[in-house]
Amino acid sequence: MKLICNSSDLSHNLSLVSRAVPSRPTHPILANVKLEASTEPQQVSLTAFDLSLGIETSFSAQVQESGQLTLPAKLLNEIVSKLPEVEITLESEPETESLTITSTFGRYQVRGMSTEEFPELPVVENGLGSQLPSAVLIEGLRGSLFASSSDETKQVLTGVHLIARGDSLEFAATDGHRLAVVVAVAQDEETGDDAKSAAGERQQAEFEVTLPARALRELERMVGGPQNLEAVSFHLGQGNTVFELPTGRLTSRTLEGQYPNYRQLIPKQFERQVTLDRKALLSALERISVLADRKNNLVKFTLDGDRQELSLSVEAADFGSARESMPAQISGEDLDIAFNVKYLMDGLKALPTAEIQMQLNGPTTPVIFTPVGGLKMTYLVMPVQIRS
Amino acid sequence: MKLICNSSDLSHNLSLVSRAVPSRPTHPILANVKLEASTEPQQVSLTAFDLSLGIETSFSAQVQESGQLTLPAKLLNEIVSKLPEVEITLESEPETESLTITSTFGRYQVRGMSTEEFPELPVVENGLGSQLPSAVLIEGLRGSLFASSSDETKQVLTGVHLIARGDSLEFAATDGHRLAVVVAVAQDEETGDDAKSAAGERQQAEFEVTLPARALRELERMVGGPQNLEAVSFHLGQGNTVFELPTGRLTSRTLEGQYPNYRQLIPKQFERQVTLDRKALLSALERISVLADRKNNLVKFTLDGDRQELSLSVEAADFGSARESMPAQISGEDLDIAFNVKYLMDGLKALPTAEIQMQLNGPTTPVIFTPVGGLKMTYLVMPVQIRS
Repeated sequence: MKLICNSSDLSHNLSLVSRAVPSRPTHPILANVKLEASTEPQQVSLTAFDLSLGIETSFSAQVQESGQLTLPAKLLNEIVSKLPEVEITLESEPETESLTITSTFGRYQVRGMSTEEFPELPVVENGLGSQLPSAVLIEGLRGSLFASSSDETKQVLTGVHLIARGDSLEFAATDGHRLAVVVAVAQDEETGDDAKSAAGERQQAEFEVTLPARALRELERMVGGPQNLEAVSFHLGQGNTVFELPTGRLTSRTLEGQYPNYRQLIPKQFERQVTLDRKALLSALERISVLADRKNNLVKFTLDGDRQELSLSVEAADFGSARESMPAQISGEDLDIAFNVKYLMDGLKALPTAEIQMQLNGPTTPVIFTPVGGLKMTYLVMPVQIRS
Repeated sequence: MKLICNSSDLSHNLSLVSRAVPSRPTHPILANVKLEASTEPQQVSLTAFDLSLGIETSFSAQVQESGQLTLPAKLLNEIVSKLPEVEITLESEPETESLTITSTFGRYQVRGMSTEEFPELPVVENGLGSQLPSAVLIEGLRGSLFASSSDETKQVLTGVHLIARGDSLEFAATDGHRLAVVVAVAQDEETGDDAKSAAGERQQAEFEVTLPARALRELERMVGGPQNLEAVSFHLGQGNTVFELPTGRLTSRTLEGQYPNYRQLIPKQFERQVTLDRKALLSALERISVLADRKNNLVKFTLDGDRQELSLSVEAADFGSARESMPAQISGEDLDIAFNVKYLMDGLKALPTAEIQMQLNGPTTPVIFTPVGGLKMTYLVMPVQIRS
């Protein structure tokens, strides 16, 4: 392999694929990134794969001689990221399985391994294919990912559940304590109408799948970049999915197992409704969380219909106490109800509108938060029982 | 105690004194900060003290009732730092030993302790007094602090040694592997001449003392702030020192024990001399350190007089190798010599000039780095023996 490329192209792509390099690889080769140079087209591809998440990207380069090699991702990334923007020459030495990087600054040689043992990224050949609009993906992931569980033993709950029906894509995530559901609908760019009206040209496949949050976070990062992508092509096969982007692709295993029937958790009717300024509530929770941190993260909400006021309070016996109040449009009877302050803050950060609605029944039944106008998002939190 | 002040004044001063709060206090009261309000003058003082380093600052406030109380530094700091800039009312409740912070946002109550057990900051009454120009302090600390030892068992080496003679102040720090010495001379601001010429009005005391690096880092931060201070008044007593600033004071114990006679370590004559661009060398070392990290941090310097070139190289057997070269003015015979790359980088970052000089004899004797022009700074590094 011999090629000339720009150091910043290599650096940018290396840091992108490196996110699929496991921090504790189960096999030495998985700590490596695969570098492939081809003369037709004149490009370099980089691949990393932790056997669950795979990322492949490519960029153009002057390739004089094609070839492939795997190299330690961390070391290569560190070396290349410290080079200023210069033209660099990459040349492999097959005997020593090493890569030499030459620039005006000097010469770096990095020991690698052959590509023989490097696992191939999964390919979905006869699976279901679909085009997912970028805006829908970003909206759905931003509103749901945070609610998935980070506890690896929780299986399907470590993922986001996707349901495609017609032109809508539903995203759901729950860790057992809270649930976020976003129904994102593709908008026709020209008219702003629902894409349904744009006739049959956007015939979408219907599917249901749970994908690991870790892979979806990387997808969000790749799609949300500055490239202003219109859509991502999606392929769903047996146990694997592939997302194709113009600059590369991301593969992920699917999570096996029945995803909980979360729809039945969301109450249909509510006895109380509160309309609030989202940022005011979030700021108050952030301040009050300092004391709540010292006392099980518990914050108490007091609804006062007469004063049309919501009060938040914390009692942390040995440390102190706090109370903040803010105006709110309250309908229904007065009530005291307590929450985990962290769950509330997570959800409020993800809700996209200035005003939000909180709907609830009693002090021990699920409470939902929804944006006023805008996106169809539902954030459900279980209250914490107050012992008096 | 009852007073009205600005939340950002309190927050700024709290975060300043909090640096003297120990992370693992030996006594509960040391985790607290002392808050003192006085009606004449109308001001609030904050004090923190870990029994070695003490910081006291004050700011003006509308004090309606004087008083004092100690409060958990971390909790108070977290609460106050999250408040937007507003007017806040602080009021103590002597019965519960707590402080209530009231603002338009709400009401926070924090449990404290009385000031009875809070240790007084040391006072130096009959000690030696001196005025230290801020520019001299900053210059000296910036060029020496980094070379002190962070190993608490190394006693005096965890400090910086100060020697005041006439108008010059000498700063020295060493951890046993490298040594940084700065001789800073007070300049007369008006004329730019040495202050000596400004006659007897700046009669300076002569002294010699070793102070903990930790305290001096805080002093550097306080003096180097945006306030543009001309001088700091310094008092040296038995085992303690006090630095007085317009906005507060810093006290520190002195380090006991004989500071090494470092002057004798610096060679008087050199067989070789190399003049170099500081930034070019530092950048090359930063790149090459990625590989040196994997091999004892060792970098080899090769002096080539014919080509007037310095080459840096690293051989990290299992990982790879690197070589960079740069132009240099070299006098003396060619030589290979090896260094710990981290020690070199530390020193090069602290040297203040664009060009630097490296002076050396053989491959196993001390090497010194000095700025070309500017400050009188000497950075000595012991080379590492190369096994062939």
